[in-house]
Amino acid sequence: MTVKLVVLYTQPDDAEAFDEHYLGTHMPMVHKVPGLQRAESGRLVTALDGGEHTYYRVAELYFADRQALDAGFGSDEGRATAKDYAKIAPPGSRMFVEVVDD
Amino acid sequence: MTVKLVVLYTQPDDAEAFDEHYLGTHMPMVHKVPGLQRAESGRLVTALDGGEHTYYRVAELYFADRQALDAGFGSDEGRATAKDYAKIAPPGSRMFVEVVDD
Repeated sequence: MTVKLVVLYTQPDDAEAFDEHYLGTHMPMVHKVPGLQRAESGRLVTALDGGEHTYYRVAELYFADRQALDAGFGSDEGRATAKDYAKIAPPGSRMFVEVVDD
Repeated sequence: MTVKLVVLYTQPDDAEAFDEHYLGTHMPMVHKVPGLQRAESGRLVTALDGGEHTYYRVAELYFADRQALDAGFGSDEGRATAKDYAKIAPPGSRMFVEVVDD
């Protein structure tokens, strides 16, 4: 039962500076979180529903199960990553746990 | 440059009935969309940020590029899928195009 940590980042004030930190510093920290199976991230470039361009980026971190996710973020590397997230995530950013369908 | 159609479904009135239609009817339609490379879906079970449980489900449909995505949803199968989406998506559901990071 794969689970994902899903992060929706709202629009940053300075997208270029955000991406520089995100790709150059934050994602390398994510990749050190124990138990991480896969990480995928990307930019939401279009709101196809014609609504507000609420979110700038999505990140999805795959773990074997919820226990592995919690253990990962309970580790030193996970805590450091969470601390960096708190520093960079624009107000209104969201973080969910997703249970992936079989 | 992989792109994804990312759908965030808000909470349905009847989660069980929603899932039955979603998994039994909607996803089989999605899998017939020409050019679809991969589809992943799941339930958002926890709002880790302590905020509102805004979204019930996420769907991510992978295509080779934006042109392939547009062609897929311009096809008969894609239009039928979009029509079914309009029927089932609870109000406030969102739909974005994501450009996946390399």
